[in-house]
Amino acid sequence: MTSESAALRERLVTFMHEQVLPRHPDVHREIASSPAGHRPAVLAELKARARAQGLWNLGMPTLPDDAPGTRLSNEAFAPMAEIMGWVYWAAEIFNCHAPDLPNMEMLVQLANEEQRRQWLSPLLEGAVCSGFAMTEPDVASSDARNIRCSIERSGDEWVLNGRKWFVGNVGRPDCRFVIAMGVSDPEAPPTRRHSAVIVPVDAPGVEFVRHVPILGSRHRYGPHGELRFNNARVPVGNLLGEQGRGFAAAQVRLATARIHHCMRFLGAAEVVLRLMIERASQRHPFGQALIDRETVQHWIARSRLELEQARLLTLDAARQLDALGGIGARRAISMIKLAVAEACFALGDRAIQTFGAAGVTEDTPVGSFFAEARAFRIYDGPDEVHLRTIARMELDETGARWPAPLLPMLHVPAGL
Amino acid sequence: MTSESAALRERLVTFMHEQVLPRHPDVHREIASSPAGHRPAVLAELKARARAQGLWNLGMPTLPDDAPGTRLSNEAFAPMAEIMGWVYWAAEIFNCHAPDLPNMEMLVQLANEEQRRQWLSPLLEGAVCSGFAMTEPDVASSDARNIRCSIERSGDEWVLNGRKWFVGNVGRPDCRFVIAMGVSDPEAPPTRRHSAVIVPVDAPGVEFVRHVPILGSRHRYGPHGELRFNNARVPVGNLLGEQGRGFAAAQVRLATARIHHCMRFLGAAEVVLRLMIERASQRHPFGQALIDRETVQHWIARSRLELEQARLLTLDAARQLDALGGIGARRAISMIKLAVAEACFALGDRAIQTFGAAGVTEDTPVGSFFAEARAFRIYDGPDEVHLRTIARMELDETGARWPAPLLPMLHVPAGL
Amino acid sequence: MTSESAALRERLVTFMHEQVLPRHPDVHREIASSPAGHRPAVLAELKARARAQGLWNLGMPTLPDDAPGTRLSNEAFAPMAEIMGWVYWAAEIFNCHAPDLPNMEMLVQLANEEQRRQWLSPLLEGAVCSGFAMTEPDVASSDARNIRCSIERSGDEWVLNGRKWFVGNVGRPDCRFVIAMGVSDPEAPPTRRHSAVIVPVDAPGVEFVRHVPILGSRHRYGPHGELRFNNARVPVGNLLGEQGRGFAAAQVRLATARIHHCMRFLGAAEVVLRLMIERASQRHPFGQALIDRETVQHWIARSRLELEQARLLTLDAARQLDALGGIGARRAISMIKLAVAEACFALGDRAIQTFGAAGVTEDTPVGSFFAEARAFRIYDGPDEVHLRTIARMELDETGARWPAPLLPMLHVPAGL
Amino acid sequence: MTSESAALRERLVTFMHEQVLPRHPDVHREIASSPAGHRPAVLAELKARARAQGLWNLGMPTLPDDAPGTRLSNEAFAPMAEIMGWVYWAAEIFNCHAPDLPNMEMLVQLANEEQRRQWLSPLLEGAVCSGFAMTEPDVASSDARNIRCSIERSGDEWVLNGRKWFVGNVGRPDCRFVIAMGVSDPEAPPTRRHSAVIVPVDAPGVEFVRHVPILGSRHRYGPHGELRFNNARVPVGNLLGEQGRGFAAAQVRLATARIHHCMRFLGAAEVVLRLMIERASQRHPFGQALIDRETVQHWIARSRLELEQARLLTLDAARQLDALGGIGARRAISMIKLAVAEACFALGDRAIQTFGAAGVTEDTPVGSFFAEARAFRIYDGPDEVHLRTIARMELDETGARWPAPLLPMLHVPAGL
Repeated sequence: MTSESAALRERLVTFMHEQVLPRHPDVHREIASSPAGHRPAVLAELKARARAQGLWNLGMPTLPDDAPGTRLSNEAFAPMAEIMGWVYWAAEIFNCHAPDLPNMEMLVQLANEEQRRQWLSPLLEGAVCSGFAMTEPDVASSDARNIRCSIERSGDEWVLNGRKWFVGNVGRPDCRFVIAMGVSDPEAPPTRRHSAVIVPVDAPGVEFVRHVPILGSRHRYGPHGELRFNNARVPVGNLLGEQGRGFAAAQVRLATARIHHCMRFLGAAEVVLRLMIERASQRHPFGQALIDRETVQHWIARSRLELEQARLLTLDAARQLDALGGIGARRAISMIKLAVAEACFALGDRAIQTFGAAGVTEDTPVGSFFAEARAFRIYDGPDEVHLRTIARMELDETGARWPAPLLPMLHVPAGL
Repeated sequence: MTSESAALRERLVTFMHEQVLPRHPDVHREIASSPAGHRPAVLAELKARARAQGLWNLGMPTLPDDAPGTRLSNEAFAPMAEIMGWVYWAAEIFNCHAPDLPNMEMLVQLANEEQRRQWLSPLLEGAVCSGFAMTEPDVASSDARNIRCSIERSGDEWVLNGRKWFVGNVGRPDCRFVIAMGVSDPEAPPTRRHSAVIVPVDAPGVEFVRHVPILGSRHRYGPHGELRFNNARVPVGNLLGEQGRGFAAAQVRLATARIHHCMRFLGAAEVVLRLMIERASQRHPFGQALIDRETVQHWIARSRLELEQARLLTLDAARQLDALGGIGARRAISMIKLAVAEACFALGDRAIQTFGAAGVTEDTPVGSFFAEARAFRIYDGPDEVHLRTIARMELDETGARWPAPLLPMLHVPAGL
Repeated sequence: MTSESAALRERLVTFMHEQVLPRHPDVHREIASSPAGHRPAVLAELKARARAQGLWNLGMPTLPDDAPGTRLSNEAFAPMAEIMGWVYWAAEIFNCHAPDLPNMEMLVQLANEEQRRQWLSPLLEGAVCSGFAMTEPDVASSDARNIRCSIERSGDEWVLNGRKWFVGNVGRPDCRFVIAMGVSDPEAPPTRRHSAVIVPVDAPGVEFVRHVPILGSRHRYGPHGELRFNNARVPVGNLLGEQGRGFAAAQVRLATARIHHCMRFLGAAEVVLRLMIERASQRHPFGQALIDRETVQHWIARSRLELEQARLLTLDAARQLDALGGIGARRAISMIKLAVAEACFALGDRAIQTFGAAGVTEDTPVGSFFAEARAFRIYDGPDEVHLRTIARMELDETGARWPAPLLPMLHVPAGL
Repeated sequence: MTSESAALRERLVTFMHEQVLPRHPDVHREIASSPAGHRPAVLAELKARARAQGLWNLGMPTLPDDAPGTRLSNEAFAPMAEIMGWVYWAAEIFNCHAPDLPNMEMLVQLANEEQRRQWLSPLLEGAVCSGFAMTEPDVASSDARNIRCSIERSGDEWVLNGRKWFVGNVGRPDCRFVIAMGVSDPEAPPTRRHSAVIVPVDAPGVEFVRHVPILGSRHRYGPHGELRFNNARVPVGNLLGEQGRGFAAAQVRLATARIHHCMRFLGAAEVVLRLMIERASQRHPFGQALIDRETVQHWIARSRLELEQARLLTLDAARQLDALGGIGARRAISMIKLAVAEACFALGDRAIQTFGAAGVTEDTPVGSFFAEARAFRIYDGPDEVHLRTIARMELDETGARWPAPLLPMLHVPAGL
C-alpha cells in the first residue's frame, strides 16, 4: 500500500467513525420508516463533507484527468470499498455505490463525448443516480444470452420492448436514466446480438411498474425496481458502445462491480461479526454467556477464517484485474463472487442464531445482512454459474500444467 | 388410519383443491398489498363452508363433548395439519391455526368454567383470536427461566410490567386477549416462579408497540406484535392454572404446538418442492432445462429424502405423544423441531437458487418459505436448545442401554 | 412386532451380550494379527450354539420348508440384522452375513433343484461360503450395463473372460464359489445382455489375483478379492436363472441385501455412538471433560437424530419391500442406502474426532467404522446413483400428485 | 519471489518431473509390498542427485553457515514444500521431510555444540532419521499440559517412564533418536513442568512396542511407532534447551512444521485433483463421461476454490512467520492448519467418489490421501483446538478494533 493510499484509507476510517457510525441509529430509523428509495436529508451534508476531504470517486483507475476523483488501482480501492461497506447507506456518501459506480466505469470506457457530458458528468458529481437494466423476469437471465428485451431501430430512434427487474436505483426520485441491455441484432451469433442503450426514465414508453420487495428490508434504501418498456423510444445517439457488442460493453462494468460488491460485503461482515460478539457477551441462557459456549466460539472462528480467506482472495483478484484485465482475471472474479457470498451467508446465518429472535427482525443489521447475502448468491451470477466457470477453466488448463509422467499414478495395483 | 379419519382427510384435500388453491392468487395479492393483520373478506365465507363440512377444530383430543370439533388423536391430526400447511392462510379456515389452536388446548386443559365460557368458547367458534406472550426482547428467552415480566398481586388484580414480542395475532383487529407468562413468585425455585395469566388486549396498561417486521413478508398475514405492559391490570380470576406453575401450564401447549407447526411446515415444503420442479422445467440457462441438470435433480432428491425422514419422525412423535404424553415424547419433540426446521431451511435455500432472482421476491411462496424456515430455526426453541435436550437424554439413558461387556471395545491394541 | 419375533429378538440380544461381546477383544486381536480371511476357531463353536438356539438363517421369507431357518419378514428381520451389526464378526455366527445371505436368497428364488442341492444347501448349513462377482475394475460398474466380463457358450460349457474385484469372501479358504455376472448376449438390448453363472473358485481358468486392501483394515475379516477369468470354464448347468436375465436375477438379491446392510450398519453405529460417549467421558483436554463440551454434545445429538431418522426410514423400506416387492420399494431402498451411509459416515467422522489420535488406529472400532462407512457410500451404488433414482421417481409422480390449481402460485406479482 | 528462489523452484520441478514421477509406480509397488518403514534402494541414489543439484536442506532460515542447505525464508520455501508434496515419498529426497526437518530446526535453535555435533549433523547429512515423541495414548494430548511421561533426574542421567505413540520414523532401521517431551518439574506451573530430552532409540529401557497402523496404508512408508519408556536412561547432557521449558522448545518446531505440512498437503492435493479430472474423463456411467456431469464439475470447482484460498492463506502465514515469528503468526498458523486439513479432506472425499471402488483401494493415491487428510484433522492439533485459538484471539482484539459508536447498531427498533 502506498503512503498516499494509506493516508486516504486513514481519512476514510476516521470519516466513518466520526461522521457515519454515530448517525446510524437515526438514519436507519428514518429509512426504515420511510417509503422505498427515500434519502435522509443528512446524506447531502455528508456527501459535501466527504468530497471536501477528497473522499470522492475513489477507484475508477481510468477516470479522465478533468473529472473529480482519485484514480486508485483496484488493489488500492478494494480496502476502501470494504470500509464503506460497514454501513449499508455509506458508499453513496463517497459516490462509490452500486450501480452508479459500475455505470460510471462503463461510461468512462464507452461513452462518446456527448454522452459523457450528458450522462456521466452528473453522476460523477453525485447529482443524479442511474440504474442498470439487464435481468428479466421472463427468462433465466443468469445466462445473459437469454435476454430478450428488443431494441429495434426506427428512424432516429431505438424502440425498446420488454420487461426488466432488479433494476437498482430505479424508482428513486433522483434516478435519471438506466443502461438497458437488449437484442438489437436477433440474427447475429448469440454473443453479438445484444446492445446497450441509455434510457432516460422519463422517455416515452418507460413504465415504472413497482418496487420489487426482496427478502428483508434494507431494500427500502436501495430498492430494486421493475420496468416495462412499451415501445419506449430513445434517440439513436443513446447507443452505448457498438451495436451488437452489448456483452463486451457489460464486461467493462462486471469485473470491478463484483470486486467492489465483494469488498463492501466483507466490510458489512466485519460489522456483523463484531455485533455478534457483543450480543453473545450480553445474553445468558442456561446460566452461561453465549460467548463462553463452544458453539458460538466456533461460529466466530469459522467466520473469521472464511472472511480472511475471502479477503485474501479478493485482494488477489483485484491485483489480477489491475495486471491482466477482466478476461485475465475471470477465474479469480468467479472465485471471489462465490466465496464471499457463501462466507457472508454462513456468517449471517450464525449471527441470526446468536441474536435469537431479534436476529430475524429489522432492529439490527443482522437479519438484512443475512437476506442480502442470500440474494447475493444469485446477483452477479448464481453460485452454479461461477462453479461452472471455475470448472471449465480448470479443465482447460489441466493438460498444460502436468506432464504425462503423472498418469501412471492413476492405477498401480499393489500385490499384497 | 381409521376409515373415519381417512374420509375426513379426503374431504380436507378436496376442500383445499376446490376452495383454497384456486383462490390463492387473489388472496395473496390482497394480503400482500394490505396492512399487516388484514383478513381477506373471503375468509369468513370459507370458514363457514369448512365448518359445515365438519372440517372445524380438528385435533384437540380432549375437547369437551359439548364443544364443536372432531377430537382426532395427534397421530390422526398430523396429516391434516400437513395439508392445511400447503397455503399459509389456510389453517385458519379450519380454526386450526397457531397460536389459537395451542391456546385452545391450554384453555381446555387448564381453564376453569368461567374462563372457558369467557375465553375458550369464542375461540372455538373462530369469532376472535388470541396471542401467546412469552418471548421478551430483553432476555435470552430460549431459556424460559430468564423471562422477567413481573406479575404482582395487588388487591383483586394482577399487575403486569414488562415487554413482550413475537406475540402472534396481536395487532389484528379481532385479537381479544393474550396469555402472558411472567414472574409471580420471584423467590421460588426457578421453575416455580412463573405464572400464566389471561390479559385482554384492552386491559388498562397494555400498550401495543408495533408490528415487528420479520425476514420476508408473509408476516403481513400472521404478524408478530410487540407489547408493553405498563402496570397492566387484570382481575385475579384471570390466572390460568396454578400460581407458580406457569411452566407446567406452558408445557400443555408446547408439544402439540410443535407437532402442528412441523406438519404445517412439511405441507408448505411439499408445495415448494413441487413449484421448484415446475420452475426448473420452465427455465433454460445455457441450453438445458434446469430440471435436466444434475445439481437440481440432486436438490430435489435430497429434499425428498429429508422431508420423508422428517415426516416419519414427526408421525412417530405424534404416536409417542398420544401414548406417552408430553414428557414421554420430549426427545421426539426436540428431534422433530430440529429436523423439520433444517429440512425446510435447506429446501427453501435450494428453491430460491432454482427460482433465481424471483426466488427472493414476494411473488412466489419460495422466498417467504425460506425466511419462515430460517425464523423457525429459532421459534419454538433454537436448534441449539434442542440439540442440548437430545444430547442430555442420550447421556441419561446410555448406562441402561448397554452392558459392561461393551467397554473393552474401547481399546484393543492389536500387535502387528 | 409379534411375540414370536420379540422372543427371538430377546434371545439374540442375550446371545450377543453373553457370547459375543465378552469375546470381542480376543477375537479382534486374533483377526487383526492374522492373514486376511482368517476365521477364529471360536467361530465354529458359536455357530453351533446359535443354531441350537434357533438363531440361524433368520430372514429369507421364502426359504423352502425343508431348509433350516425362521422365515421372518423383512420388517421382522431388520431389527435382528441391526443387533448382529454391533460387532463386525457377529452376523456370520447366525449365518446371516453378506454376501452369503443375499446369495442364498438368489439361489432360493432362482436355482433349480440340482443347483440348490449342490450350492444352496452347504450355504444354508454354513459349511462353506460364497462370493458375488459383479464389479469390474475396468469400467464404471455403478452403471451395471457397463459390465463387460464375457460369458460365451462353448459346447457344454460357459467360458468366462474378464476381471472382477470387490468380490466378498473370495480368498477365504472355505470359499467354494462365486456368482458371476457377465455379458452372454452382446447383441441384445442393454438390459438383456447379461447372465449370472455359478463359478466354483477351483474351476479351470479362475485366478485369484489378490486381496484388495481397502481403507482401514476390518477387511482382514471380510476381505474383498480380485479375480481374473482367463477362459474360465463352468458347466452349462451353472447358469442361474434365464440367459440374458442377469439383471433381473441380481434384482432378487439387491433390495434385501441393501436393507440388511443398512440395518447392520445402524447396529455398528449404535456401538460407535456409545463408545464415543464413553471416550468423551474419559478425556479431559483444557480442564473439562469432552462430554461436557457443547461441540461433543451436539455431535451426539446430531448422530442420534440422524440414526433415528435413518432407522425409521429403513423399517419403512422393509415394510414396503414385504408389501410391494423390490420394484415397489425401489425409491425407499435408494433412500435408505443414501441416508444410512451418510449418517454413518458423519458419525464415524465425529467419533474419530472425539477419540483423537486413537480414532485413526485399529485399536478401537471407530476408525474402521469410518472407513467402512466411507466405502459404503460407494458399495451398493454410489450416493449419486441413488440421488438420480430418487429424483427421477419424484419427477415421474409429480404430475399426478398435484392439481393444476397449484400452478398460479408460481408467480403472483404483488403490486406494492 | 527472487530470481534465485525462482531458479531453485524451477530445478525442483524439473527434478520431480524427470527423476521422481516416472519412478513412482515402481517405488509405490515396492513400498506397498514391503514391511513398514522400508526404504527403496533408489532413494539413496536420488538423494545424492538432489544434493548435487543444491536441492538439499531447503528452508531452515537460521541454518548455521557451515551446514549444507539453502536458508530460504519460510515464504520462499513454502512453494518448494508444495512441490515435494506431489508424491508421498519425495520430501525425503531433499532432506525436507517430517519429522526430521522440524527436529533439525529445533536442534539448530536449541542444541549446544556437542548436541549439534552428535545429533544435528547426521540429520543434516540425511544419514540417519529421528522421531518426535510427544503424543501419549493415555491422555488427551491435544492439550499438551496433559502429557505425563515422567523425566526424573537420577545422578548423571534422566530417567524416563511413560508411553508415547504417533512417533514418526521410529521403527525404521535408520532411526537413531527421538526428542521426547515429558514432565521434569511436576510442582512447577503447568507450562513450566515439561522438558525435552534427546533419547537414543537404543538407550536402555526404550521399548519399541509396535507400528501403529493408521487408516489407509501410506504409513507403511512413514510409519507411526509406539514406544514405552521403562526407566529409560539418557545422560543429563541430552536435555534440549532449558529444564522446564519444554513447551517453549516445542514451539520452535511447531509453526514451521505446520506450514510445511500444509504446503506438502496442498501439493498432494494438486495431484489428486489432477488425477480426479483424468479419471472423470475416462469413466462413463449412464451414457455420459463423469467429467461432463455437473456434480463432478462442481466438485472440481469447489476444490480449486478451497485449495486456492488455503494456499493464499498459507503463504500469508509464511510471510507473517518470517516477519513476526511464531507467536505473532499464531492466529495465521491455526487458520492454515484448519483450512488446509478441511480442504484436503473435502477433496479426498470427492476424489474417492469420482474414482468409485478404486478410490478406496491402495491402487491410487486417492484413498490414502483421504485417510491422511482425515488424520491431519487431528495431527498438529485437532480442528477444535484451532477453532478455540482463533476465537480467543478474535475476542481479545475485538475491543481494540472497533469504536464504541458501533454499539448502537446492536438494536435500533424501527417503528413501522
